[in-house]
This record gives sequence, C-alpha cells and structure tokens, in this order.
Amino acid sequence: MNAPTPSTHLAPTILQREVPDALLTTLKARFAERCSTALVVREQHGRDESAFTTVPPPAAVVFALSTQEVAEVVTLASQYRVPVIPFGVGSSLEGHLLAVQGGISIDVSRMNQVLAINAEDLTVTVQPGVTRKQLNEAVKSTGLFFPIDPGADATLGGMSATRASGTNAVRYGTMRENVLALEVVTASGEITRTGTRAKKSSAGYDLTRLMVGSEGTLGVITEVTVKLYPLPEAISAAVCSFPSIEAAVHTTIQIIQMGIPIARVELIDANTVRMVNAHSKLTLREEPQLLMEFHGSPASVKEQAETVQEIATELGGNAFEWATTPEARTRLWTARHNAYFAAIQSKPGCRAISTDTCVPISRLADCLLDSVAEADASGLPYFLVGHVGDGNFHFGYLLDPDSPSERATAEQLNHALVARALKLEGTCSGEHGVGLHKMDFLLTEAGSGAVAMMRTIKQALDPHNIMNPGKIFTL
Amino acid sequence: MNAPTPSTHLAPTILQREVPDALLTTLKARFAERCSTALVVREQHGRDESAFTTVPPPAAVVFALSTQEVAEVVTLASQYRVPVIPFGVGSSLEGHLLAVQGGISIDVSRMNQVLAINAEDLTVTVQPGVTRKQLNEAVKSTGLFFPIDPGADATLGGMSATRASGTNAVRYGTMRENVLALEVVTASGEITRTGTRAKKSSAGYDLTRLMVGSEGTLGVITEVTVKLYPLPEAISAAVCSFPSIEAAVHTTIQIIQMGIPIARVELIDANTVRMVNAHSKLTLREEPQLLMEFHGSPASVKEQAETVQEIATELGGNAFEWATTPEARTRLWTARHNAYFAAIQSKPGCRAISTDTCVPISRLADCLLDSVAEADASGLPYFLVGHVGDGNFHFGYLLDPDSPSERATAEQLNHALVARALKLEGTCSGEHGVGLHKMDFLLTEAGSGAVAMMRTIKQALDPHNIMNPGKIFTL
Repeated sequence: MNAPTPSTHLAPTILQREVPDALLTTLKARFAERCSTALVVREQHGRDESAFTTVPPPAAVVFALSTQEVAEVVTLASQYRVPVIPFGVGSSLEGHLLAVQGGISIDVSRMNQVLAINAEDLTVTVQPGVTRKQLNEAVKSTGLFFPIDPGADATLGGMSATRASGTNAVRYGTMRENVLALEVVTASGEITRTGTRAKKSSAGYDLTRLMVGSEGTLGVITEVTVKLYPLPEAISAAVCSFPSIEAAVHTTIQIIQMGIPIARVELIDANTVRMVNAHSKLTLREEPQLLMEFHGSPASVKEQAETVQEIATELGGNAFEWATTPEARTRLWTARHNAYFAAIQSKPGCRAISTDTCVPISRLADCLLDSVAEADASGLPYFLVGHVGDGNFHFGYLLDPDSPSERATAEQLNHALVARALKLEGTCSGEHGVGLHKMDFLLTEAGSGAVAMMRTIKQALDPHNIMNPGKIFTL
Repeated sequence: MNAPTPSTHLAPTILQREVPDALLTTLKARFAERCSTALVVREQHGRDESAFTTVPPPAAVVFALSTQEVAEVVTLASQYRVPVIPFGVGSSLEGHLLAVQGGISIDVSRMNQVLAINAEDLTVTVQPGVTRKQLNEAVKSTGLFFPIDPGADATLGGMSATRASGTNAVRYGTMRENVLALEVVTASGEITRTGTRAKKSSAGYDLTRLMVGSEGTLGVITEVTVKLYPLPEAISAAVCSFPSIEAAVHTTIQIIQMGIPIARVELIDANTVRMVNAHSKLTLREEPQLLMEFHGSPASVKEQAETVQEIATELGGNAFEWATTPEARTRLWTARHNAYFAAIQSKPGCRAISTDTCVPISRLADCLLDSVAEADASGLPYFLVGHVGDGNFHFGYLLDPDSPSERATAEQLNHALVARALKLEGTCSGEHGVGLHKMDFLLTEAGSGAVAMMRTIKQALDPHNIMNPGKIFTL
C-alpha cells in the first residue's frame, strides 16, 4: 500500500471533448432561455467549493424542470457522445462539478418539489433539487425530520450522489442508510427506479446503493425517497472544552464504545474555535471542544447526558455548557457549520484543501494526533473539525491558490494523513466523495482489483463515458 | 404492473451445462477427498429449504478451506466455463443452491474461523462459513453481540449473499446496514476487497452493497466484516395476545410511527400459535400474538415497555406476559424460530412455499388482512409469522409436493399477495432473496429497465455466466 504521488492532485487531466454546434442548437431550440451559454452562467456551473481553479467551464447549462427534460438532455448527449454533469447548489468539495471533459451541465436546482410526504411511513419523496433545509421545513408540521446534515444546505440529489453524511450520522447513519429508492436517468436516457418504499428488500441487486455515492458517473438522480424520523421528544445540546485534543478524542471513543446513542459529537480544535468565535461572535473557550447533542425521551436524554458528563469529567473535560432552547442550539450548530467559512475568511483570498479520512474509532487518536503534529510543524494555517463519533474528521489546509509551495505543503500533509488512515484500516473519504482529488487515494485504498470492478460497471452502464466522466477513476 | 403468470414458478428452467471430465480430474487431484462426486454429498448440496425438488444435483462438491482454494476452484471453473454455486448450511428458502445449470458446489462451511474481533471498534471479521450462533458465542466475552437473526442458524456468507435480516432488524437493520466490508472471489478467480473497517465511506462505488444480496451471482464471498453492538444493559421480552390480527397489526403500526426503538416485534397468528405450542410444548394463548423485545438502559426499557403496553391495551391487547430471565427469553424466541419447523411437522411430508412481501408500515394492515382472508378461503393450511415492525411477513403455504392442485393454489395465493404488496409500494422480497422463485415477481416489481441494468452488471462482471447462473434473472 504505497502512498500515491501527490503531484497529480490539483492538476486534473483535462480532455475537452467536442460539443457539436448541432447539439447546442437543438438544446437552445428545445429549452429556450433555460439553455444558457452565457459565460457567467457556465462559469458558475464549472466550479465548486474545491481548490481546483483551472478547468474550463461546460459548453452550456440546461435548467431542467422535470425528469422528462433530464431524460431528453441525456438522450441528446448520448447521441452526440457529449458529457453531462448534474448540478445542484455547487457545494461539492472534491471537484465533482468541473467539466474536465467538457460537456453540458444539467442544473436540477429548479426541480425542487417535495413530491410525497408519507408521514405515517416515515418516508418522503423529493425532486433532486430540494435542499435539506427546505425538506425539513416541508415536513416540520408532521413532527418528523430528516437528520442528515452535511453542514452546507446541499440538495438531496447531490447528497445522494456523494453519499453524504455529517453531524447526525453517528446516530442516524449516512445517505447510504437513509435513501430508500431513487429515480435515475441512465446513460441512454432511460428513466429507471431503483427501489420501493419498503423499509427493507432482498429483491435483486441493490441498485439504490450502487447509485448512492456514484457521483453522477452512472446516471442523473431525478427523484429521491428517504427515511424520516420522529422529532425527539427531548433534545439537549452541550459544549465541553478539554485540556487537549487527546482528551476530547478519548472521551468520544468511550462514548461510542459504550453504545451511548449520542446524536452528535463534533470536535473543534482550539484554533478553529478562535476562528468560529470571530466569525459567529461567540465566546466559546478557546480550547479543544466537543459539541454534543442528545435525542430521546426526557429520561433517556438525561441518562445519556449524565453518563457522558461522567466520562468527560474523568478525562479532564470542563463543565458542560448546555443549550436547551431551540435558539441556543441553532446558534451552536450554525457556528459549527460556519467553521468552514470562518476559516476561509481568516485568510483573505485563500482556498481550502479539505481532508476527509475516516478510521475505526479505536484508531482515531493515533490518526488525529500525529496529523495535528505534522500540520502544526508545517506552518500552514488550518482548521480542524471532526464528526469524531464516526472516526471522521476534516483538516482544512488554507492556502493561497497562487502559491505552488503552499499547495505542495497542503498536498503533502493530506497525503501523509491518508497514508496513515489507510494503514489504520480506514478510508480516504468518509463523506465528501472521490471526485477529482482522491482518485489516486482510492486506487491505493481499494486496490486495483476493486477499482477495475468499478470501471467495468461504469463501462457497461455508460459505454460512451458521458456521465460525469473523469471522476472517481480514469478510464 | 401486471402480475406475472404463476405457471413458471416451481418449474425452473434447467439447462445442464457440461462439466468436462478434465475439470473433475483436476479438482480431484488438487483437493483429494475434499472434492466429492458421491451422489449423497451432491444431492445434499443440490437442495435447500425451498419447495423445488426436481433439479439434478451439481457434478461435484469441493470443500474449500481458504480463500485461496475458493479462488483456485473459480479460476478452474472459469477456464472450463463451468458454473460454481457457493454453499454454507443450505438454509436458503428460494432455491439459491440448486444447480439449475449444473456445475460445481463450493462448500465454505469449513471456512469457519472468526478472524478478528475488534471489540473496541465494534467490528468482527469472519470467514463465510461462520454461523450467527457461532459468531455470538465467539464475541460473548466482549460484551458485544451481532443482532441479525434470520431464525435459521445461517452462515454469515449466506446471510450476506441474500441480504438477510429477521427479528432484530426493526432496530438494528439488515445485512445491508451491518456489513462493513467483504472479501470476494470474482468470476475470473481474483480476490478483491470491497471496503475497509471505517464506519462510513464515500470512496467510490459501494461494491460491498452490490455484493450483499447478489446471491452468489457476482462472486463468492470469502470474508465478512460486520458491525457488533454492545449487549443492552437491560433486555425485556413480552408476549401479548390480541382479539384479532388487525388489532395486533395496528399496535405495531403505532409503535413504529411513534419511533419507539423496539428491538423485536413479531406477529404470530392463532393457528401458528397452535402449531408452535404443540411443537415447543408451550401454552401461549391461541390468539394472534405479538412477541416483543426491548433493549436499552433499565430506565429506557421500562419506558418503552410502558408506552407499548398503553398502545396495546387501547387496541384490545391482553395482559403482557413478561420473560425477563435469559432462559425464558430463549424459550420464547426458540419457539418463534421453530414456527417454520412446527408448521412443516403439522402436515407430514409437506413442503412450504414461503411468501416474503414487505410493505410500508401504513399499508401493513391492508396487505395482510386481505391475504389472510384469501388464504382462509383457499382451504390450504398455512402458517403466518411476521417481522411486522418492518412491514415484512411470511405466509408459509403447506403443500403436498406431489399435488399439482395444492401447488397451484399456493402459487395463486402467493401471486395475489405479491401483486397486492407491489400495488402498496412494497417489495416481493423483504429478506429471502429472489433465487429461482421470484424472478417474475422481480421483473414486475423493478421493471424491465432496472432488471436490464442488473443483467448488464452481471454480464460485465461475469462474462461467461459461471457465478450461480439462472438465479435472480435469466440471461
């Protein structure tokens, strides 16, 4: 398991395939002002939150309003052998949206209808452009909620495509566990359903989970059915600071090993607390912090909180600060979610290279602490946040995009971290996906046999390689 | 969505492909007495718990001891274009193990080592022949357990291959949610890993979940890493009888809709209680029963039990009978698990055709009650048990295998039930798999587009169609 060479990472292979005028003419005739070739629109659809800046934008953007329209675009693209790239709100961190082989961006953000709330079954079916906040607004009156929360107000389509998770995953699982069924437009432009609303099924290959996390390379997601959960009777959130990252991590490890059904347990290091305080006008102690949330009946929440406090105290944690009102909780989690933006703003003009390793919980301290030491020694500013209950954490190395040496330093740190995580039986990506940035890492992690299997599936389902080509692996 | 014609169901297409003598000679030379062509051994490996009785056995059985040996057999089979069928303990209910295209049975039951217990990470890695009871024995001293419990003492390999679940799935999920990673021998005889021990991952296509439920048609599973859970601090089991199936089902629906984290909620109808009482020497009231189990802290178990009792009482449930000692609980669940055998023994010489529909919980009463009325009207004896918390239940129609009219009646009932479940947005198979018996149902449920996608994947990964061919769909 050799570490891949870092050189290729921020210079993706660009292979501009031709987009014939005839296709653009046909799309314009069909979609009128909903097919745009304006540079500003194309540029907006040719980038995301990743640190890639040098890829030309797609040739056109089609704003689709229905599954049928997506199917029409894909059918045309298939005839002309032109790539299509689905676009939601552009919150990818891994270059998923970049037109590295040119082509057409299919913007599904206007497909934002909540199609069916089946409250009594705890399911909801939405169009792919519905965002997680919009979804939670829509189901609020039913007493249910959708827990997956990657921070950004991402679309359900994008979250499915990247197998997203976030702060609540420690208790509620990821998109892998929460998507029941999808509607997908395949590479030939056919519309296919991958499952039913039944909670479980053994009926054939698990096409739903094959599509979840396929990053647009196997089809365009046009409908998503997900699980909902009853709003907990009681919710309590708390902040606890620790004398060291180590103490915070060991507290987390014990919580998980004891099977406490904690809903959120997030690490922020001291430096990131400083950034968050400045950005969100908070006064959190500038020490490593665990942000936690407990869900359940009042008795169960009390019990969980007491046990966790005991563990934390034993490991040197300071007094818990509780946030029991919805407003106080919102303030807390908004601050957490803004950590990324707080960090970006702390170094004007910078971009972040975000790591995403995830390791078995017993290896978390080993993986994290060595990487902190390396990052500190490098001198590069960074933020550090972690869904530590899942063994997943993110360093964001803040670099001047015009500084080759800062890029090189960031890549070296990322590299050493991934190598360490893989050695500890972890993964290079807990929740962001592979995109452009982790192709080498994936090969190291999964091995050539498994990646060959992925390629074989891709080639069989997308023989002209038009579905978001150049992502996950090269063909 | 037309119901498929029942005629094909119990007469699988048999297409005996040639097994060259040269292959048998090579296997015998390599594996000596661990390669058997004795009729009794072959026959034992050419059947399962399904109602299929007319398929010739495989040409030979190889008892593999290692992944390497499985790979050797598959490599040879690939060279000779001969089917291979993985075999664990033979508890399939859907004909998965039948050699409908001839070939070699690879018995992995001697690959029964627990390879790595990572208690601090709540994971364990086992060989495919380890059974669920053996696994729970092996991890007992760690204070952890593996919850998936399909009734039969199935192997982890077989449970993975069929995406099994069972009585605890309502709380802990199915094999879909609980397998972290697999080692698989692919159709070309290569050994591939599909994941790491990280709790979550967005690193490429979800090969693990593609393999889980693929019924041996994409590869032979040679290692399984699954999640473990802390043994609950408190466990309480209870039986409650109801004046009608309807009342029991509505109680279940309310429990689920309220989000009570019940660990087990199983329905047994009055007639099946009679069979179970006779078989297990119990004195359960001969009325529809819910068998329940609660896991958690003492306070949480008490709280769950109280809420459930309130719901049940309101819907006419009788006093709960509690089983709090391990012995009493074991007696209860053993009785439940023996329902199948109790039923089979109630009609000497019979075979059961087991249904396996699963519907969204709000549709459960509709689906179940109409099917009970139809089964009663048919005059065919049956048992009825259900993992009702998941919307999944099984009728077992008891038929004389030599009576074409009983077979026809059973198939018609199964048929009407599946058509009803699909109309209610459910699935034809909650946990048993498609095998030979549900190929038409799968086509109706998933549609020709989705099944074509499955076929395309199969053909790409297994171009000579040697991996358990003739199951799930025809090629």
